[in-house]
Parts: sequence; structure tokens; C-alpha cells
Amino acid sequence: MRRLPAIAAFLVALLCALAAHAQQGDPLPSWNDSTSKKAIVEFVQATTTKGGPGYVEPADRIATFDNDGTLWAEQPLYFQILFMVDQLKAAAPRHPEWNGNPAFKALAAHDEKALAGMQKELLQLLAVANSGMTVAEYDQSIRDWLAATKHPKFNRPYTDLVYQPMQELLAYLRANGYKTFIVSGGSIEFMRPWAEKAYGIPPEQVVGTISETKFEMRDGKPVLVRGPRIVFVDDGAGKPEGIYRAIGHRPVAAFGNSDGDLQMLQFTAAGDGRRLMLLVHHDDAAREFAYDRASKVGKLDKAWDEAKARRWVVVSMKADWKKVFAFQ
Amino acid sequence: MRRLPAIAAFLVALLCALAAHAQQGDPLPSWNDSTSKKAIVEFVQATTTKGGPGYVEPADRIATFDNDGTLWAEQPLYFQILFMVDQLKAAAPRHPEWNGNPAFKALAAHDEKALAGMQKELLQLLAVANSGMTVAEYDQSIRDWLAATKHPKFNRPYTDLVYQPMQELLAYLRANGYKTFIVSGGSIEFMRPWAEKAYGIPPEQVVGTISETKFEMRDGKPVLVRGPRIVFVDDGAGKPEGIYRAIGHRPVAAFGNSDGDLQMLQFTAAGDGRRLMLLVHHDDAAREFAYDRASKVGKLDKAWDEAKARRWVVVSMKADWKKVFAFQ
Repeated sequence: MRRLPAIAAFLVALLCALAAHAQQGDPLPSWNDSTSKKAIVEFVQATTTKGGPGYVEPADRIATFDNDGTLWAEQPLYFQILFMVDQLKAAAPRHPEWNGNPAFKALAAHDEKALAGMQKELLQLLAVANSGMTVAEYDQSIRDWLAATKHPKFNRPYTDLVYQPMQELLAYLRANGYKTFIVSGGSIEFMRPWAEKAYGIPPEQVVGTISETKFEMRDGKPVLVRGPRIVFVDDGAGKPEGIYRAIGHRPVAAFGNSDGDLQMLQFTAAGDGRRLMLLVHHDDAAREFAYDRASKVGKLDKAWDEAKARRWVVVSMKADWKKVFAFQ
Repeated sequence: MRRLPAIAAFLVALLCALAAHAQQGDPLPSWNDSTSKKAIVEFVQATTTKGGPGYVEPADRIATFDNDGTLWAEQPLYFQILFMVDQLKAAAPRHPEWNGNPAFKALAAHDEKALAGMQKELLQLLAVANSGMTVAEYDQSIRDWLAATKHPKFNRPYTDLVYQPMQELLAYLRANGYKTFIVSGGSIEFMRPWAEKAYGIPPEQVVGTISETKFEMRDGKPVLVRGPRIVFVDDGAGKPEGIYRAIGHRPVAAFGNSDGDLQMLQFTAAGDGRRLMLLVHHDDAAREFAYDRASKVGKLDKAWDEAKARRWVVVSMKADWKKVFAFQ
């Protein structure tokens, strides 16, 4: 019996190699054969070729993805803002003190332009509204909303609006030993209920904005209760900080679409060896939306300039992607 | 070629089963055949037996471990305090304002009893001392200290003082599909440099106390710089909160040794289905240390009472472990 494990291990390795060869095909079928796709494939091959100059040890293969506008759509407003608007409308009768609040005014007036720049203010109102809720109750309210509402343009559940080419990219990276994380300005609670199914990213790999929670005993049962404060904003300069807190490695590859991702990409680029920094450019009004420098949601301005200057990959949704959503 | 993957997959499964059978033996060789060991093995078998009443889906197999006193030793003082004492001594000439500070007084007087209860105060002094350091510089100072210093009783590097039976337990859980996390009152920075080698736990699975960091450009390079504030204390009621922030699942199994772990164990116990809550009791003065209710470091009092009342597993280091450290 002694030698059986070694023989088995050899046969397993041999058969895995054969199986991999037989199954090999295009790992990114929704991507056109553009320079963007070539840059991705070349990066993955270089960082996984043992003995090659770009090789990265499996333990260091960390890839971080922004969520809104990078993995799923974010127009006409971040979907979390749409959720918050509905939650705040429902809570408003209990909060007459909100009448003078600028964020609540924008909400009551359906002023989408103003709301787009007010995610933090809305989060703060909502944090007050939801203070005292257990995290399980809050989780359920998010699941209920996602199940009940549809996107105004596509008339489909929001969770259908994940980008097919990015799902393929996530799977391709994982198949090559990368651990994939979300690093988003959205709150952890809003992403965790569906990120595993949509992206294959489990709750413990979702890094985001964090609200205060407190451990309490209620009827002899321990619960976590939401407090009124936001304790960490995982956006802009907060992204590398969130990565340090939650992941503890510098990413080898980082993916974003807006100025809120710039520092994450800079931090990724500053490491040694091969790196991949990629921005998704929303230039496809027909299949999705077209916006960049002038947009309130997902503004792409400084990060775009830096990407051009430093030759980071800028994906054209129009030119680089065969399809945007799986349902198209 | 079409059928090759299916045939290969079948053969792989067959060979893996044979290899597993051949290699099977006692997964916990440093544990005596006590009720503690039986409870662990029975829990793992129940939660991994598909179709059984205790079955837990692989995605939910989350196990959290306290570090100090649970995975490695913590006497005569938490090792991080010993590190901080050395750092503070070195920094003292630059901080005359510390002269009236109670924590610094205890340190200058080598008052171990007083220091034991002052981890937070010492962390705050150190945070001030290290403010302005990049996280890379701080990481290096920890690695240098660990390489240069030895434990006063065992005269060995601190990283040798990890418990062999707990290393086996970590490996056993992982071999059964569990994802293992540290959830410690110690700071993330102090554990990450060595936890992967010592425990097989990568940086992104180390949850701990968090100090402020800020993203900055220095000489055109992005760096994370330490600030003077502690922003999250991952101890006591902070442990379930830290788990929620960083992991986002309720653990199925939790391991601790002191009252600082009580809420983590309560939170774990409050979930549905099979659960494992375990405390390590330090009752082995000959091979390690003996302390519990009266200790300033790793006080085990309320958690012990609750463990007895609720029939959680209480491990006797003396009776349950064949060896404590690998070098013994």
C-alpha cells in the first residue's frame, strides 16, 4: 500500500493534464480578439508559467474587482442607491426630521443627478433608518428588494445585469489559481447575498463599505444589531486601505471603471513584477450605456488619463465585447 | 477527444479515493483518545456526511480560531505585548510626554501584572510611536523582532510556540473542506507575517485588531501610512462583529481559550444545525503554563462556566494532548 499514493498522484496529474488539454478552448468566448483580450491572456500566461520572468506564486495571485460599472451595470444610478431610495421612502413617515435634509429632498424630488453624488449622505440617512435592525433582518430586506424590483431600462432583475465577459474573466483567473475579490464602494451587505451565485465570489471575499454593528443579547439570543454610523468607506483612497485591512496582500491584477478605482490601480501597479491594471470604458449606448468624463455616476476622467499615460488596459465595451449581458 | 474528460474525471475520482484510503490514518496523532478528540472527529464526520442530519454545505464550512492561548502560547505576556514593549523602549527617547503615562510606567518598571491588562493602552502608545511609518516598514519591524528574540521560558523563537495538536486540527478541518480563519484580539500586522507558514492560514484569513492607515503618495509612489488611531478592536463582543465584517458567514466551529472568546462561541452556537464550540484549558504547568480564572492574561472564567453549562468541549492540555509543542 505504501507506494499507492505516489502512483495515484502521478496518474492523477497525468489525467488532469490530458483532461485540461481536451477541454481547452477559448476561456473568454464573449471577448473579441482585440488587444485587450490579448493583454489579459498574455498576463495570465506570463504569471502562471513556472520559471518564466513574470511568474507569480499561487499564494500571491490576488485579483481585485470593483463592482458597480465593472462587474455589473450602475446606470441610471448605483443600484444600491435605488434600493436605499425605496427603503428611505418607506421609512420617511417615521422621520419628520428629514424634511430639511438635502439628500432626502433630492430623493423626494426624484432628482437623479443630485442623488448620484449623494451615496454617502443616503447611506447615512439609511443607517439611521435601519439602526436597531439585526444584520439578518437587513439582509432579508435586501434579498426581498432584489427579488421584487426590476431595472428601468432592461426590465429585468438587477442581478441579471452582470457583465458576461467579466464573469468569464473571473472564472478564467480562478482556473489559473487566482483568488478573486470584490473591492467596492458599495456596502458589504448589499453585495454578499448574490455575489457568490453571480460571480463565484463568496462573502468572505467581498470587501466594501462597512456600517457599525453591535453584538447584543435579545431574548437570550446573540444578535448583531446595526448602528447609525458608517465606519469605513471603501472608495477612492479607501480601496487600497480596504485591501490592506481585509486581504493583506497587494493585488497582482486590479479591475475598475471609474476615478473611484484609481488608487486601487495605482497601488496594484506599484508592486514588483508583472501586473495587470484594467479599466472598463462604458462606450456602448446601444447595448448598455455610454458615459465617462462628465458622468455623476461612474465618472471616468483622471483614471482614464492615467491609464493612457501608463498603458493600462482600457476595455471598450463596444469594440471588445461580443455581448454585454448573458441575456442579449 | 470528446469523452476523454469524462473518463479522466472518473479515473481521477477513483484514484483519489484509493489514495485517500491508503493515506488514511489518525488525522490527530498528537491527541489522546479522549472525549475531546471524539467530539471533534464526530463533529467533522457529521458535518461532512452528505445526506446525514448534520451535513453542512462546503461553502458554509467556516471555522474560526482565536490565536493567543488557542493556537500558540500567550504567557508570561501576549507576545505582541513583548514586541510592543521592545518597540516602545526604543521609541521612548523621542517621546518625553510618555513619562506620566500609566502604561509606559508599567513598562519602565517591568510590571508584568499591570502590563497584562494594558494591551489596548500599549497599542495606543505604539500607534503614536509608529504613526507615519509605512505598513511595509512596520511589517519589517515585526519580522526582524520575531527573528531576533526568544521566549524567556523556552528559549526558542516565539513562532516555535505554536501548539502541535491545534496545527493538526487546522489541517484536519481543511482536509474536510473547512476554511480556517484566525479571529484574534491581536493586530492583523502581528500575525500575518508568519500565520501562513505556522498554520496554513493566508493573510486574507487573518481577522484582528485594526489600526488606521492612510493612502499617500511619497516620491511619486503610493504607500499606506500608519496613523495614530486604533479603529477596530477584535476582542470580546468585537469578535462576532469582526467575523461579520470580514467573513460574512456565521462560523460552524469556533475555538478559543479565554473570556475574550465567549461572544464568538455564543455567536457560533446560536446558528442552526451541528456546531462545535471548543475551549483550550491551560492546565499543564510542566509542559506549558497553568492558569485560568485568576490570570490577567487569557483569563478563563465566564466562558468556562458557560462551556460547562452548555456542554461545549473543554480541552485539557495535560490530559488531551500527547505533546504541546512540536519540539517537545
